Amino acid sequence: MRVVTLGEMMIRLMPKGNLRIEQAEEFEAYYGGDESIVAASLARFGAESRYVTKLPDNPLGRNAVRKLRAQGVDTSFIAVGGERMGLNFYENGASMRPSYVLYDRKHSAMAEATPDDFDFDGIFRDADWFHVAGITPAISDNAAQTVKVAMQTAKKYGAKVSVDLNYRSKLWSPEKAQSVMIPLMQYVDVCIGNEEDAEKVLGFRTENTDVNKAALDVEGYRKTFRAMKEKFGFSYIGSTLRQSYSASDNGWSALLYDGKEFYHTSTYDIRLVDRGGGGASFAAGMIYGILSGFGLAKTGEFAVAASALKQTVRGDFNLTDIGEVYSLMSGNTSGRVQR
Amino acid sequence: MRVVTLGEMMIRLMPKGNLRIEQAEEFEAYYGGDESIVAASLARFGAESRYVTKLPDNPLGRNAVRKLRAQGVDTSFIAVGGERMGLNFYENGASMRPSYVLYDRKHSAMAEATPDDFDFDGIFRDADWFHVAGITPAISDNAAQTVKVAMQTAKKYGAKVSVDLNYRSKLWSPEKAQSVMIPLMQYVDVCIGNEEDAEKVLGFRTENTDVNKAALDVEGYRKTFRAMKEKFGFSYIGSTLRQSYSASDNGWSALLYDGKEFYHTSTYDIRLVDRGGGGASFAAGMIYGILSGFGLAKTGEFAVAASALKQTVRGDFNLTDIGEVYSLMSGNTSGRVQR
Amino acid sequence: MRVVTLGEMMIRLMPKGNLRIEQAEEFEAYYGGDESIVAASLARFGAESRYVTKLPDNPLGRNAVRKLRAQGVDTSFIAVGGERMGLNFYENGASMRPSYVLYDRKHSAMAEATPDDFDFDGIFRDADWFHVAGITPAISDNAAQTVKVAMQTAKKYGAKVSVDLNYRSKLWSPEKAQSVMIPLMQYVDVCIGNEEDAEKVLGFRTENTDVNKAALDVEGYRKTFRAMKEKFGFSYIGSTLRQSYSASDNGWSALLYDGKEFYHTSTYDIRLVDRGGGGASFAAGMIYGILSGFGLAKTGEFAVAASALKQTVRGDFNLTDIGEVYSLMSGNTSGRVQR
Amino acid sequence: MRVVTLGEMMIRLMPKGNLRIEQAEEFEAYYGGDESIVAASLARFGAESRYVTKLPDNPLGRNAVRKLRAQGVDTSFIAVGGERMGLNFYENGASMRPSYVLYDRKHSAMAEATPDDFDFDGIFRDADWFHVAGITPAISDNAAQTVKVAMQTAKKYGAKVSVDLNYRSKLWSPEKAQSVMIPLMQYVDVCIGNEEDAEKVLGFRTENTDVNKAALDVEGYRKTFRAMKEKFGFSYIGSTLRQSYSASDNGWSALLYDGKEFYHTSTYDIRLVDRGGGGASFAAGMIYGILSGFGLAKTGEFAVAASALKQTVRGDFNLTDIGEVYSLMSGNTSGRVQR
Amino acid sequence: MRVVTLGEMMIRLMPKGNLRIEQAEEFEAYYGGDESIVAASLARFGAESRYVTKLPDNPLGRNAVRKLRAQGVDTSFIAVGGERMGLNFYENGASMRPSYVLYDRKHSAMAEATPDDFDFDGIFRDADWFHVAGITPAISDNAAQTVKVAMQTAKKYGAKVSVDLNYRSKLWSPEKAQSVMIPLMQYVDVCIGNEEDAEKVLGFRTENTDVNKAALDVEGYRKTFRAMKEKFGFSYIGSTLRQSYSASDNGWSALLYDGKEFYHTSTYDIRLVDRGGGGASFAAGMIYGILSGFGLAKTGEFAVAASALKQTVRGDFNLTDIGEVYSLMSGNTSGRVQR
Amino acid sequence: MRVVTLGEMMIRLMPKGNLRIEQAEEFEAYYGGDESIVAASLARFGAESRYVTKLPDNPLGRNAVRKLRAQGVDTSFIAVGGERMGLNFYENGASMRPSYVLYDRKHSAMAEATPDDFDFDGIFRDADWFHVAGITPAISDNAAQTVKVAMQTAKKYGAKVSVDLNYRSKLWSPEKAQSVMIPLMQYVDVCIGNEEDAEKVLGFRTENTDVNKAALDVEGYRKTFRAMKEKFGFSYIGSTLRQSYSASDNGWSALLYDGKEFYHTSTYDIRLVDRGGGGASFAAGMIYGILSGFGLAKTGEFAVAASALKQTVRGDFNLTDIGEVYSLMSGNTSGRVQR
Repeated sequence: MRVVTLGEMMIRLMPKGNLRIEQAEEFEAYYGGDESIVAASLARFGAESRYVTKLPDNPLGRNAVRKLRAQGVDTSFIAVGGERMGLNFYENGASMRPSYVLYDRKHSAMAEATPDDFDFDGIFRDADWFHVAGITPAISDNAAQTVKVAMQTAKKYGAKVSVDLNYRSKLWSPEKAQSVMIPLMQYVDVCIGNEEDAEKVLGFRTENTDVNKAALDVEGYRKTFRAMKEKFGFSYIGSTLRQSYSASDNGWSALLYDGKEFYHTSTYDIRLVDRGGGGASFAAGMIYGILSGFGLAKTGEFAVAASALKQTVRGDFNLTDIGEVYSLMSGNTSGRVQR
Repeated sequence: MRVVTLGEMMIRLMPKGNLRIEQAEEFEAYYGGDESIVAASLARFGAESRYVTKLPDNPLGRNAVRKLRAQGVDTSFIAVGGERMGLNFYENGASMRPSYVLYDRKHSAMAEATPDDFDFDGIFRDADWFHVAGITPAISDNAAQTVKVAMQTAKKYGAKVSVDLNYRSKLWSPEKAQSVMIPLMQYVDVCIGNEEDAEKVLGFRTENTDVNKAALDVEGYRKTFRAMKEKFGFSYIGSTLRQSYSASDNGWSALLYDGKEFYHTSTYDIRLVDRGGGGASFAAGMIYGILSGFGLAKTGEFAVAASALKQTVRGDFNLTDIGEVYSLMSGNTSGRVQR
Repeated sequence: MRVVTLGEMMIRLMPKGNLRIEQAEEFEAYYGGDESIVAASLARFGAESRYVTKLPDNPLGRNAVRKLRAQGVDTSFIAVGGERMGLNFYENGASMRPSYVLYDRKHSAMAEATPDDFDFDGIFRDADWFHVAGITPAISDNAAQTVKVAMQTAKKYGAKVSVDLNYRSKLWSPEKAQSVMIPLMQYVDVCIGNEEDAEKVLGFRTENTDVNKAALDVEGYRKTFRAMKEKFGFSYIGSTLRQSYSASDNGWSALLYDGKEFYHTSTYDIRLVDRGGGGASFAAGMIYGILSGFGLAKTGEFAVAASALKQTVRGDFNLTDIGEVYSLMSGNTSGRVQR
Repeated sequence: MRVVTLGEMMIRLMPKGNLRIEQAEEFEAYYGGDESIVAASLARFGAESRYVTKLPDNPLGRNAVRKLRAQGVDTSFIAVGGERMGLNFYENGASMRPSYVLYDRKHSAMAEATPDDFDFDGIFRDADWFHVAGITPAISDNAAQTVKVAMQTAKKYGAKVSVDLNYRSKLWSPEKAQSVMIPLMQYVDVCIGNEEDAEKVLGFRTENTDVNKAALDVEGYRKTFRAMKEKFGFSYIGSTLRQSYSASDNGWSALLYDGKEFYHTSTYDIRLVDRGGGGASFAAGMIYGILSGFGLAKTGEFAVAASALKQTVRGDFNLTDIGEVYSLMSGNTSGRVQR
Repeated sequence: MRVVTLGEMMIRLMPKGNLRIEQAEEFEAYYGGDESIVAASLARFGAESRYVTKLPDNPLGRNAVRKLRAQGVDTSFIAVGGERMGLNFYENGASMRPSYVLYDRKHSAMAEATPDDFDFDGIFRDADWFHVAGITPAISDNAAQTVKVAMQTAKKYGAKVSVDLNYRSKLWSPEKAQSVMIPLMQYVDVCIGNEEDAEKVLGFRTENTDVNKAALDVEGYRKTFRAMKEKFGFSYIGSTLRQSYSASDNGWSALLYDGKEFYHTSTYDIRLVDRGGGGASFAAGMIYGILSGFGLAKTGEFAVAASALKQTVRGDFNLTDIGEVYSLMSGNTSGRVQR
Repeated sequence: MRVVTLGEMMIRLMPKGNLRIEQAEEFEAYYGGDESIVAASLARFGAESRYVTKLPDNPLGRNAVRKLRAQGVDTSFIAVGGERMGLNFYENGASMRPSYVLYDRKHSAMAEATPDDFDFDGIFRDADWFHVAGITPAISDNAAQTVKVAMQTAKKYGAKVSVDLNYRSKLWSPEKAQSVMIPLMQYVDVCIGNEEDAEKVLGFRTENTDVNKAALDVEGYRKTFRAMKEKFGFSYIGSTLRQSYSASDNGWSALLYDGKEFYHTSTYDIRLVDRGGGGASFAAGMIYGILSGFGLAKTGEFAVAASALKQTVRGDFNLTDIGEVYSLMSGNTSGRVQR
């Protein structure tokens, strides 16, 4: 099971506890970025995972490599050079105060990288799967071009391709997103994204649903999934369903579709430690489930349990082991200490 | 919009997280005090706010000035001298363990200041509003005299006067409070205080209500407000309504009265980060709403939203911006990250 | 009121906040261990408490003594020597992620101590009560022997004996536990333990109950208690009833039995700060109540309130004072600040 | 005494203690930048100081304003807008391991600002002095143009102009530096810079001197100063003389020249807490001395004492008060506690 | 060996590392006070030591007791009551920046205590030695009276009396100090104090010496000691000799006199971790040496080694064990790790 | 360049800053152990390095692997299993207070491992060099046997063998050390160790030298080296020469011998940040130099510069890059910031 992911790695600078950026005399530093989280998750589950990006030749870039290596990710195809690493300042919300992200990621090494920076034949020659998030083509036109070439090369070598649509309004407009992303869908086998992503990135409007609300209309999602399948022929479609009760507590489940069946997973009510990385951890779980031949329901339960656990861990990477995911899937939600 | 507030500034020494004072090998230091919170809030909302106090000529006193200046508060009328700053050691409660305050504020520069320490004509010449809390006259007879002279001078220059009754049982008895506060009511246009304050400070007993309980009897409040209006002729009366489910979770709303209408605001269920400063932030919101001509309902919603947000922020000052208050007022309570 | 407790003291090394051990670049260090928590609680309530253990002659061992002395515990009978202190690495869970304990306690001074290390006549000559947990005989055969001699000497001097069964699956099997513990029951007057302990340690199976579930079947407990009373003739039996909603929130109550009456206490819903030490704090409360002649109901309410408060405090020792316990018992659960 | 400074403000992200960036799981955040340090120093000494820059409209930019306001700096002419704040990651060296700066300051609001962003007439109408460092024109051509217009406007209103040459090899080459800076010298009255700056920025080679060595050849400096005076007609020239024994210990003195006399100040041997900001603090001291009419020797002693004290303080701003500077000037170097 | 000490206990609030009070968003809290340091030192050396003070009935006061108990000090004669604990804010200097103390100790429980608060007969009945510092009578007239009664009672029961003159210019003037202290000298057997103390407190001027200078004139001290002996008949006189090279590095030795011989100890050059508590640790060492019959030279070497070690430890108490003192006395100054 | 190292990995638990273990409410955690430091250094210099050990199957063991992987060390031959990781509590000394190590490493997975746990043929088949320290055979007889088999297998595949004698008095006696180590010397090509190691481990007494003293007698070393060469036929012998001025400052140089020439390197005076890992970093530098064909002088300068830099970095691993070593070798000792 050999999975390649490609994207931008960022350092998330986060004030301690629930402090605001304004109060921060110091910041915790977490290394992450959507596809690097997927790569780290898969490596922890036992897959061979390879992460592709471009990182600057400075202590921060070298540290990013160390963080990936520590998780067992293959970093040998990471390009070195460029100006800077992407950063973001992230304020943990609480109760009705939302979390806040201040991106400082422009002009990053990865945003300014071009397809020529990467040895895509070497990268994909032995790959079974390629995964990328919609954030990566959003960071620059160069990056969009890189993603396109990567997808084409992946297909050339017979790898499955998955995309996590992940719309970011601070990076591009719906119009721009659609103009870039829709042409890429021809290469995509597995599409992940919630109803906001489906609308902004692919143009499918889900009725009666509002990502800012806690209630769910699963039926609306089903209609959207069917339309997506019809238009793009995806093998699998998956969406996490986040019920945002507040910045402190969320409901968390997922809907999966394989073109025939729908499966709505169990719902976890999460006292959030850090919601960041939840979506990427779900994508990792879904890829792992499909590659392991789990079937739709077990894939969904695995992916939603893995990603729920992520949100109880501070930092970007999903620092859970596969045994913990299975334990949660088996109904062990009491949080009782084993001793 | 030019608002003057007067009071004592204190340093709140707080163990990390939920540690007890007994466990504290170190303390976080927050500079606050009721009226300084009001001044800082108003400055952040865009008003010109001036804070009046007396601070000792030492690094702590100078630091207090820096904290105010950082918020944009006019500190040019702060008197310098006296013996010490007021301190308090504050232990954050959790669940059914209440928070605990150990005052160490006696003999402070402000407690020992007299009206002669302040240039009240300069202070109020260009002022539209004067605000003070009932804590300030409670700290010493000198301070009570200072408050009285301040109110009189404020009226002389045509400013509106608001008071937040804020009864503190560790500072004075109901008898003493009433003997000092009732004679001051003649200068007061806007009176803020919950039913405990109304009873202990002004002698109005609200029936069927208990500040230690989570349930609310809004009707009892209405009766008390009508009686207060009748006796003292206040233009506006406001009270926050805190439902103390536990030291970790509170309900939060407010009741306002303009002599004609009552308005009971929306209720927020708050996972508390730091309940300190909630009342003062409400007072700042109410002053801002009235001075902005918001009308009773919008004033109430603004003030309760601002003060709910405060309680999701650690420290005394309400480090929110007006846009965040409007966003919460418009129903954005999901805590969903915008990115 | 002179109480002796005997056991092993450990240092609990805990990552900051909710971090995983994997993320920990630093650990908080808490000194604890079941019977030392009981001793410290009783000393804080005003009893004369004496803790007996063996500690190595190094800075960690000396520090353990200092932590006990600070609580007012008599440490004059602690043996000095041996190889090391027991340690554990403890990861605070959150939401559906359970807390995790990694014991590193083998070969500790106490595990390798023998009865000859202790002057049991001196220890018990003036004692009214002896308490030990089932963890202590589990750590080694030597320790089991030491507990046996301690119980015999305690009885020789007329002290009551209590045991908190406290089954630890990482230390021994049910078979081993029963072979050691059942013969000790002849010395025991007061037996504390939940239904899992009763089954694993004494062989009583409680029907329809699952310690991993949030729901309670109090009737099942009653049957088990009656059977225990019948077989071993305990004067009192007590069990805490933890409803594990998640790693963040628990329900907490207790059932007590004096051979005639059952008493099911009030239930507290606790937002957990640190669940560690809850059981030991309950045992301390129960001992204090019985020695104070509180009667069954007041004893139960005292013990459950004391131990609920513990779980709002970080660290092992129950750093509450008796006034706080009484205040909570009297219904003061609002967490409202007194100021 | 009304001084204007103009430049870029940055956040310095610094690992705790002496940790390397590679080890940093968290960073302390200090707000600084050469001319903002000068402005803050002068405000603390009692001058009216105004700082001009452009800052982005986000929490970091607003925080920078708060840090300046806290020091009493006039921030009313700061332009708001642009993309980002400049950052740098700064590793504190130790012993023979040098400190390390990783600039991440490109594309900052100030680098992309143009003269049109600033109301220079308003800024300089009431100014006595204008100060800028050679770092500012180095950050971009726009910034160089902004500095030029600022200098011209300053002269129009009769202000003295000082420049701290401050060559930064990571920002520009000597050729580029000279092409920009030499034409600006016509506006400059007071020129500050060490022999490396003189060579790289203005083309004056000082013989027998090496900034990497601990030894000093003051005579070489005198020659260079005379040549600079001759060519550009500066009223005053000053240079700090740093003897870099190691990253932990430095010698610190200064040479001043008024076209007639040379003055070599006392030398302080500093156990460095944070060498950052030493040069800017010297510039502030020199401006303060000249504006106060101290004469050459007292100006030099004041400036070198102030800047030595800075290097015993962590962070960018020189958080000393004028009394501390006078005390050190008077020979009080024993570090003895006054109590 | 049973030693009683009496004085005020304070909490020292200290910014992290070398930060200034102005920068402190948090303070480390150390419990200390001159005579409590002596008591803790003696307890650690194995003496029975009893500390007498008055502490308020609040969590800070109770914590002070716990800190003493942890060191093995007998706290059973501590009076409980009064208004507050004394505090001080302490800024660690560095290099030529001196450390700074901001006392906030007025109105403390001990300052307002009277002799009637203490059971002096019980305190001294079994005592061999009584020690007090000149700081204690300086805090209030009541405290001066308490010290006098304590000395008289100590003499009544045959205890030796030592005093550490310890002049504090922020507490009283030389005139006041002499009026209080000189009459107490009739009770004193052992007098400790440097030449500044001798002058300010007892009126003996030592020539050619300046406490702010690094150089020593031991001969001047000898003259002063002879004069003190002559006037007051002390059995022993001792003075530490601190050479204040800077706030970071000090020389440290001592001069002792038994009326016949002088002994000037070895000198330690100390890289200071925390100079606080050095003097008190010397006093403890001198008392221990005399009571142990060490003779003049060994007493001096013991006391100076113990107090040098203190200054390598952060916090007030001298957290060294007697074995470490002996090891340093034997010439083991290399700081080489034993492993 | 393919190097294998074998040994035990430990977690060093270290109080913050200079605090004593007694004061530590929290510990920093550093993963290290002599041969793992060598492996990490070599990987950072660009060699392929493989570390062999046995680690327990728990979060600490898995974390140790992550720390090695992050440095680029090949961890694929690490055995998993056993009881626990070795720990040590390490107190940073200061000035004349020595650092202190409390080992808690008995019964570790590596101490109880046997040669059968390792696939030595796989490990050494492609190896050029094998390195081990004298600490490893000291931890248990099993470990000594494992080292012997490893050396034999290394020789079988033609690898050079180096040993760092590293005598640890807390682990074994000189007699035991010699009985184990001398028979191993037949396999050793490169021997590293100071004169204490030579005496305690191999029985060579160096005259006129004392490791606890700051002075050096290089001639004595030369004699010892010649005798070692004669007896065991080593190709290279190296010794670091640490001059322990105090726990804060050390001199650091090295003497190398290739059987023909002696080379005494430059001496660095180090303000210590963390002396731990200095010796292992020297060994890594020496191995790197020899394998790179640097010649004796350059090898010595490289190794001593690398290991001097280590001592300016907190933690066990030598987190320097090869460019920094070359820069220091070239005389860049001023610690001047490059910017």
